[in-house]
Amino acid sequence: MEISASIVKELRERTGAGMMDCKKALTEANGDMDRAITVLREKGIAKAASKEGRKTAEGVVASYVHAGDKLGVMVEINCETDFVARTDQFRTFCRDVAMHIAATNPQCVSRDQMNPEFLEKEKNIFKQQAAKEGKPKNVLDKIVEGRIEKFYAETVLLEQPFVKDNDKTVEELVKEMIATLGENIQIKRFARFRLGE
Amino acid sequence: MEISASIVKELRERTGAGMMDCKKALTEANGDMDRAITVLREKGIAKAASKEGRKTAEGVVASYVHAGDKLGVMVEINCETDFVARTDQFRTFCRDVAMHIAATNPQCVSRDQMNPEFLEKEKNIFKQQAAKEGKPKNVLDKIVEGRIEKFYAETVLLEQPFVKDNDKTVEELVKEMIATLGENIQIKRFARFRLGE
Repeated sequence: MEISASIVKELRERTGAGMMDCKKALTEANGDMDRAITVLREKGIAKAASKEGRKTAEGVVASYVHAGDKLGVMVEINCETDFVARTDQFRTFCRDVAMHIAATNPQCVSRDQMNPEFLEKEKNIFKQQAAKEGKPKNVLDKIVEGRIEKFYAETVLLEQPFVKDNDKTVEELVKEMIATLGENIQIKRFARFRLGE
Repeated sequence: MEISASIVKELRERTGAGMMDCKKALTEANGDMDRAITVLREKGIAKAASKEGRKTAEGVVASYVHAGDKLGVMVEINCETDFVARTDQFRTFCRDVAMHIAATNPQCVSRDQMNPEFLEKEKNIFKQQAAKEGKPKNVLDKIVEGRIEKFYAETVLLEQPFVKDNDKTVEELVKEMIATLGENIQIKRFARFRLGE
């Protein structure tokens, strides 16, 4: 197996181990980065699991705690350069997104991140509801589909109407920022803590 | 099955449904609260999954974002009364804990919350390391045990030495606050975002 110089360099940066050790570990691990780190650690060459994370993008970690300190949101939003990350426009955008999340309680950033069990449970509830309402069988599926779309618009961050301007979704707001700042922008993750929840 | 008045009351508070509907739903669900909520929703009586969470304790949600906005921590700390939650001492304590987490990157609050796969992986690494160091077989287990204890002290929040005073652990700091404020105090959860991790 061919071990490229760039992957050796990455392993060196992540572990602080020497070049030859990194190359040997990668060969032993068939080029698998995580496995190579484990190999180096087993040999006592690399340290601390907590150092494994590495910066892959620029951006900002922003937080918003609602008055009274019972509800807080933290969000990571990525862009391409630190220059853009430092602009007032980008900062204001991050703060707006954090406040939006505090107000609307989304379950995830995008549709593909929705918990499948949670979605399945909702679908079953919609089916039961539609059946209880006595809708004819042949339109049931269409109705359930429509309710699922509505459910996404209520629970998926990018599909929610933006709280400060209901005429656009959060996704449209992100696209506006991309156009304005001339860089790709991505809402990567968020955490929302409500006291006692 | 006997449905107690208190469980009916809880279901009413969580769903906003009427008393008779709640009692019926609980009977149908054999007293299971989550199942009863689903029953009410299927009947179209209760709404919105996002309202299910309910306040069970007082306390504070605090956040700390490190200078440069590349690293943030959010923490929920519970106490018994809002009176204590509003004191300067409790607030300072919450901020200290958030800063501590930013500095030390713990994996979880307490030992029982440690990810079992992660722990298993670490244990294997310790065993390999000790074997590589040529220790005699009969003391190997003791050595591995000692390294696991050290691993806990490095990665479990309550067992870490407090960054502002290394002579005590975070758990001892919590106990001091309990003694000072006269209420039970609990670090419930935290999130730590480092840009690009």
